[in-house]
Amino acid sequence: MSKGLPKRSENYSEWYNEIVKRADLAENSAVRGCMVIKPYGYAIWEKMQRALDDMFKATGHQNAYFPLFVPKSFLEKEEEHAEGFAKECAVVTHYRLKANPDGKGLIVDPNAKLEEELIIRPTSETVIWNAYKGWIQSWRDLPLLINQWANVVRWEMRTRIFLRTAEFLWQEGHTAHATEAEAIAETETMLGVYADFAENWMAMPVIKGLKSASERFAGAVETYCIEALMQDGKALQSGTSHFLGQNFAKSFDVQFTNKEGKLESPWATSWGVSTRLMGALIMAHSDDNGLVLPPKLAPIQVVIVPIYKTPEDLAKISERVNPIFEELRAKGVSVKYDDDDKQRSGWKFAEYELRGVPVRLGLGARDLENGTIEVARRDNLTKESRPIEGIADYVKDLLNEIQASIYQKALEFRESNTFSVDNWEDFKNQIEKGGFIAAHWDGTAETEDAIKTETKATIRCIPLEAPEESGTDVYSGKPSNKRVIFARSY
Amino acid sequence: MSKGLPKRSENYSEWYNEIVKRADLAENSAVRGCMVIKPYGYAIWEKMQRALDDMFKATGHQNAYFPLFVPKSFLEKEEEHAEGFAKECAVVTHYRLKANPDGKGLIVDPNAKLEEELIIRPTSETVIWNAYKGWIQSWRDLPLLINQWANVVRWEMRTRIFLRTAEFLWQEGHTAHATEAEAIAETETMLGVYADFAENWMAMPVIKGLKSASERFAGAVETYCIEALMQDGKALQSGTSHFLGQNFAKSFDVQFTNKEGKLESPWATSWGVSTRLMGALIMAHSDDNGLVLPPKLAPIQVVIVPIYKTPEDLAKISERVNPIFEELRAKGVSVKYDDDDKQRSGWKFAEYELRGVPVRLGLGARDLENGTIEVARRDNLTKESRPIEGIADYVKDLLNEIQASIYQKALEFRESNTFSVDNWEDFKNQIEKGGFIAAHWDGTAETEDAIKTETKATIRCIPLEAPEESGTDVYSGKPSNKRVIFARSY
Repeated sequence: MSKGLPKRSENYSEWYNEIVKRADLAENSAVRGCMVIKPYGYAIWEKMQRALDDMFKATGHQNAYFPLFVPKSFLEKEEEHAEGFAKECAVVTHYRLKANPDGKGLIVDPNAKLEEELIIRPTSETVIWNAYKGWIQSWRDLPLLINQWANVVRWEMRTRIFLRTAEFLWQEGHTAHATEAEAIAETETMLGVYADFAENWMAMPVIKGLKSASERFAGAVETYCIEALMQDGKALQSGTSHFLGQNFAKSFDVQFTNKEGKLESPWATSWGVSTRLMGALIMAHSDDNGLVLPPKLAPIQVVIVPIYKTPEDLAKISERVNPIFEELRAKGVSVKYDDDDKQRSGWKFAEYELRGVPVRLGLGARDLENGTIEVARRDNLTKESRPIEGIADYVKDLLNEIQASIYQKALEFRESNTFSVDNWEDFKNQIEKGGFIAAHWDGTAETEDAIKTETKATIRCIPLEAPEESGTDVYSGKPSNKRVIFARSY
Repeated sequence: MSKGLPKRSENYSEWYNEIVKRADLAENSAVRGCMVIKPYGYAIWEKMQRALDDMFKATGHQNAYFPLFVPKSFLEKEEEHAEGFAKECAVVTHYRLKANPDGKGLIVDPNAKLEEELIIRPTSETVIWNAYKGWIQSWRDLPLLINQWANVVRWEMRTRIFLRTAEFLWQEGHTAHATEAEAIAETETMLGVYADFAENWMAMPVIKGLKSASERFAGAVETYCIEALMQDGKALQSGTSHFLGQNFAKSFDVQFTNKEGKLESPWATSWGVSTRLMGALIMAHSDDNGLVLPPKLAPIQVVIVPIYKTPEDLAKISERVNPIFEELRAKGVSVKYDDDDKQRSGWKFAEYELRGVPVRLGLGARDLENGTIEVARRDNLTKESRPIEGIADYVKDLLNEIQASIYQKALEFRESNTFSVDNWEDFKNQIEKGGFIAAHWDGTAETEDAIKTETKATIRCIPLEAPEESGTDVYSGKPSNKRVIFARSY
């Protein structure tokens, strides 16, 4: 048990901050709103990147890299897009510093003012579509399926580590297609990739759906999203996939000659997930003892801790551990043998628990005599003594079991915290308690706004898989033919 | 043969630009000095990243991520460092745009001026050492071995794609050590990693050496580098590793308690390579037919092109190709079967030659009859007919041979273009012709400056492996005990 980690039930927000800090995942930097991702946190992000990147490539996408800077005039070209991002733009106005003539230090050189200000990309639709103008001439150039791994900056006033930071890391896919149908299919395919990643890698169940018009990405015709439920009953948008219609193609004068020789504007999509997923991962599974990581994303999947008093004991244990270590490695398991003499085994147990290592193997003198080894699971905190013989196979299977079990637990949590609500009193009561509320909505922005103002709940999504069902709007009483998901959110 | 690619011998600079363009590696963006790295170019960069990242991890380093923004006051803290970078800083002064009250579009909101300006990182010593203050307290926290993959911005006035761009991608290692000796050893280890990568992956021989004082990184005590010779006889600095002494530790008040309980300042290193290596790779090996890629960094190592007239022919060829394709893939070879019907085989041959694919296999109806396949090598442009039987093994070995052969060719080029020069007339004549000049230098900045002014040649490095040898400075006639390498450079 780690000393002083706040309890989820008492102070969820502090509990989250302390896990980020104590598991050594990240910290706030001296630069307002920007975080430092520490090695252990970054190792998890690298695992996420690798898995996602493989999935993007398997669906035909290629990576590329576009400039950090967006000229102000580019941002202005797509009106809704410009309006949506103008308020959070970090603006570069000068390109040189000089020695302060009146004293110490450096000042901005007033003679080095840019003719046109540059925005640090908050997202890259404009820069990329400006490049696509040169890349797309003919139907033969389509589809164009590109992804970029990059940093972006959105000047947020209230920041929260991983969940909302001024600078964050992400990937942004930007595709161009000859037909509307193909672009919509791409938007849905990538939503499916995100849901697959969330469920099968992050062990986090998600609801796939559409955003309401007021929650759409600035410049999109339709925004698809995946929504997850955190342990405090708040929703977290975990990925978005946008159908952009021909908006950016038209704003940037991109046209192609179709098979019939006629000029057309291509259809676009964009889609992204970010280091925000790190926040989701932490909040979805962790407990009062610290981080809980699904094995597929754990930098260390198995740690082996020797329990000994003398160097001779340690030598004997190490001799027994080495072949197990090698066997696990050969099976593709990421394993660490912690024989560091500077810390006691009790300290190590607590430390790896805090860091969410899925399986801990403990081996002491008595185990050597008995031919046993202690196997501790991080997810449900159970321990058992097992025969050393065959332990590598056992652990390999156990990792799969833990992955499935963490998902199952999160799914059960979500199911028991999703409520069908049919009247306004119940809605107001339930939203205070948290969870997803499935309720009828009349489809108007007015009702959506009124509900948000009164309860701070937003429509998280209009689920793709919800059945048609006639009913009446929980607030306005007007007719509705489908339930949507409401929640308070991050 | 690709139409109209300029000849190296006639216009080296245009030849380079055209290869970058026609092999679809990168392009200049609409943003001044910033490039777009296109998918094929980015795929090469990804291979470089993966290889380097594995080498960094194998030498005990971990990745992390630090903010894009450097507060101006951080930059000011280390004086030489500040002076070195002040002139090329992109400066963020505002954090919001607003609608233009006098007309269309957006303007910078004057009410959103930052209290302190933020610099886009030109390099991250300051931001990272500011973080290290919280990470380093005791000798137990050392060594701290961190690497970051990131974008950086240096506002260059004259830019050249890959070689010198305002924004570029790189990795920067930043380590902290308890002793001076350990930090110097780290600096040298990483120089060795870079040399290993240049020679064994890029197939590009390099000279390891020290920079003269005037060419040192701003803030370093000693800068180590690897220098390569391009085909036009100019040098290209391909990687640097800096011993930073205690400069940054002291500027940022970082101290640790040593084993004796006393406070000390840690010793630092930093080291980096960038997308500039892409420029080096292109210029080191390519020829008048286009790009030549060493197999280890080629996104496509082998392309198989069917030669056919009818769909029936193609079907028969494909049937024979499929098992070869699968066998190559199983052997870890990156192989593409190009059965695209939109282009003729002759066009494909030229295209893959231009893109530097190391091995091309061609298969036609007559080959099927004879049980043969045509094997074409990109590096030396030779072709041979081989039995289809056993072709996968043959190609796998051939890739190794090509890798070695490209290196050997570059090595021979460098050796025949490295000249020992002992008097000033010969120096001036030789420098006009290009190449590395090994000459005596008296060790003074005055002589170094005078030579640079008269000939545009700089000291590329003081080679680590050059023997002690007494002589006289080629310019000043003063005594010297070692030859250094002079050249004109990128």
